[in-house]
Amino acid sequence: MSADPFHQADVVVAAIRNAIEGNPQLAALHQPEFRGNEWEYVKDCLDTGWVSSAGKYVEAFEARLAEYTGSKYAVAVVNGTAALHICLLLAGVNAGDEVIVPSLTFVASANAVSYCGAIPHFADVSEVTLGIDVNKLEQYLSDIVINRDKQSFNRHTGRPIKAVVPMHSFGHPVDLEPIVQLCERFNLVLVEDAAESLGSWYKGRHTGTFGRLAALSFNGNKIVTTGGGGAILTQDESLARQAKHLTTTAKLPHAWNFDHDQIGYNYRMPNLNAALGYGQLERLPSFLNRKRELTARYFGEFAKVPGIRLFIEPEFAQSNYWLQVLMLDSPDIGLRNEILRRTNESGLMTRPVWTPMHKLKIYESSPSMPLPVTEELAKRIINIPSSPNCAGEE
Amino acid sequence: MSADPFHQADVVVAAIRNAIEGNPQLAALHQPEFRGNEWEYVKDCLDTGWVSSAGKYVEAFEARLAEYTGSKYAVAVVNGTAALHICLLLAGVNAGDEVIVPSLTFVASANAVSYCGAIPHFADVSEVTLGIDVNKLEQYLSDIVINRDKQSFNRHTGRPIKAVVPMHSFGHPVDLEPIVQLCERFNLVLVEDAAESLGSWYKGRHTGTFGRLAALSFNGNKIVTTGGGGAILTQDESLARQAKHLTTTAKLPHAWNFDHDQIGYNYRMPNLNAALGYGQLERLPSFLNRKRELTARYFGEFAKVPGIRLFIEPEFAQSNYWLQVLMLDSPDIGLRNEILRRTNESGLMTRPVWTPMHKLKIYESSPSMPLPVTEELAKRIINIPSSPNCAGEE
Ligand SMILES: Cc1ncc(COP(=O)(O)O)c(C=O)c1O
Ligand SMILES: Cc1ncc(COP(=O)(O)O)c(C=O)c1O
Repeated sequence: MSADPFHQADVVVAAIRNAIEGNPQLAALHQPEFRGNEWEYVKDCLDTGWVSSAGKYVEAFEARLAEYTGSKYAVAVVNGTAALHICLLLAGVNAGDEVIVPSLTFVASANAVSYCGAIPHFADVSEVTLGIDVNKLEQYLSDIVINRDKQSFNRHTGRPIKAVVPMHSFGHPVDLEPIVQLCERFNLVLVEDAAESLGSWYKGRHTGTFGRLAALSFNGNKIVTTGGGGAILTQDESLARQAKHLTTTAKLPHAWNFDHDQIGYNYRMPNLNAALGYGQLERLPSFLNRKRELTARYFGEFAKVPGIRLFIEPEFAQSNYWLQVLMLDSPDIGLRNEILRRTNESGLMTRPVWTPMHKLKIYESSPSMPLPVTEELAKRIINIPSSPNCAGEE
Repeated sequence: MSADPFHQADVVVAAIRNAIEGNPQLAALHQPEFRGNEWEYVKDCLDTGWVSSAGKYVEAFEARLAEYTGSKYAVAVVNGTAALHICLLLAGVNAGDEVIVPSLTFVASANAVSYCGAIPHFADVSEVTLGIDVNKLEQYLSDIVINRDKQSFNRHTGRPIKAVVPMHSFGHPVDLEPIVQLCERFNLVLVEDAAESLGSWYKGRHTGTFGRLAALSFNGNKIVTTGGGGAILTQDESLARQAKHLTTTAKLPHAWNFDHDQIGYNYRMPNLNAALGYGQLERLPSFLNRKRELTARYFGEFAKVPGIRLFIEPEFAQSNYWLQVLMLDSPDIGLRNEILRRTNESGLMTRPVWTPMHKLKIYESSPSMPLPVTEELAKRIINIPSSPNCAGEE
């Protein structure tokens, strides 16, 4: 690695500039693009007056999403956080339970656990996937778990451990098969946080279809956006029905009566937002192609730069490359910050990975395994401009 | 009252038909109308790419809403339920507290209390306002409250009583002044559920500006819609800042770091939805005028019908007449259902009031005062077509 962070930051700025096309003012981390039928569908909502809970786009969006991902069921909701909250409730997570979550994630993964009154229990991640390190987790659970009546309990806290929530960071799938096995061995429910991984496959099968439930996000910064939105994937008809019911105030169907049989939520996605998403899904193949093209360009540029490499999808995966990841060869917060400063000053949007959950005051007393890789990666990762338009127009 | 429900239902169908203009297929309870600048603003979001968390419409919508209501602050959120949830959290409602809520309300009012881990405590309503009967509530609290350290406790359950959430049913303001006094006397926080009362004034001041906090809704069936949406009103700068912070994942401002100092929520309103609402607010005066015109027509028609009357705003109020209310002179579930059946069969959308909260299984064990008026009104109220277009075009 270069001893001179100023020089190194210059090299990074030049490499990004070489890789991307067009105006560096447009070099956003991920900028949405509406060049297909989005306006037609959105305008249809305004023309017909169907912008809210009724209208055809919610169902159409759900059907298209299910078809694309190969999921039996998809339930559109108001955002990815709401999706995760409902996934966990339907996974049977109760107040006082523990749920395994990677420490290296966006805060919503841990917050959704808190909304259930449960406690996130943090797992370390692997440098190869940026997601949960399943070998470490298996070893760790073998040490701390007591099995009673086919349920896992944390021997230190006495609390049930109910579920594991792997997250596919920046669109790169975690190693799902061994996680599925681990969940079977320890009687844990697998809930995938697939907020970032629409368009990412693991061994030919779409992420989010391995868990009993999974959450997607269509926030403005995601590969496909509905303004704000999310979805729940499941292969289980009864869970799909319950997800729809719980996210629409748990109202029982009736011509006019208002009866609600559970404490439900207003987590439905409005028709207006679904119309936008319906148009966006048509464009997803183009977004994916251009992101891969951009990856190839970055890979070429950064091959020449010592001390830094571009993160490439694990061999079992086809990733959406939602956000491109630069990795410093070793942790160096000074170099990381210098690169962040110089790129952002140059109109190239970059950012570090999230502050690990166990470093936030709100979660510092949550249980966790040792988290050495998480702590290192927090000082090594930089996301760089990843918009499809960085690789040009279609 | 007529002894013949069939005949009575016929008379009601005819009266509604006489009052409304145009095609009875369009006689919705409340149908949104997009005939102003809504297209332009929504298209602007797609053209600029700002559909989500950034963009100018959220702030513009908040500013216009604050100006219209005369509220110092307005914070746009994802829906009215989320608004209520945050209002209650900011009112200091904790797990195990009790919150006074009318039993005659939409289930979200009670659910928002449950989301805080608190317990709704149901109050009866007045026939004059359809909202909390403040005289009864005062008498009741005098009986059950023990005051310790300037805090009210329920002597039967031992739990703190923290807040009162009056709801302005169908847009008709409750009698707010005595409720403000009652809250002072018992050290309760006043949180208004103003989900239905945008455009409704109490003694010249807009509903939602009397409480420490208030929640509005812009669901598709409300007088102004954002597809799905809500807002928090407050006159307190610090509460407004906290509301914005809590509804946007409690992220601390920083050029690139992800630090969150509270367990926050993803409750922000997307820019796309705010753009729609910004256009809708321009049209609110027209909606209000036409709803009053419709009220006058219904009033004329139903003056001739024995046994039934049109609900008219309390004398201290100027109501938005969001949903027009027919009231049977006395409770008669058979007549009510016959009218519901015949009107809906005739293409005139009608519905009863909500099942009272204490009648839902999920809330049947919640504490409550005697609720005789609520139980009667549940058998007397019918909402009838109330769309602005029922009174014609502008
Ligand atoms: C890993 C992860 N989980 C959950 C979420 C929550 O999704 P949303 O922002 O749609 O609520 C996001 C996206 O913001 C995310 O990146
Ligand atoms: C009285 C009342 N409170 C709360 C809400 C919740 O608002 P939203 O549907 O926007 O979540 C509504 C509207 O549905 C309502 O009528």
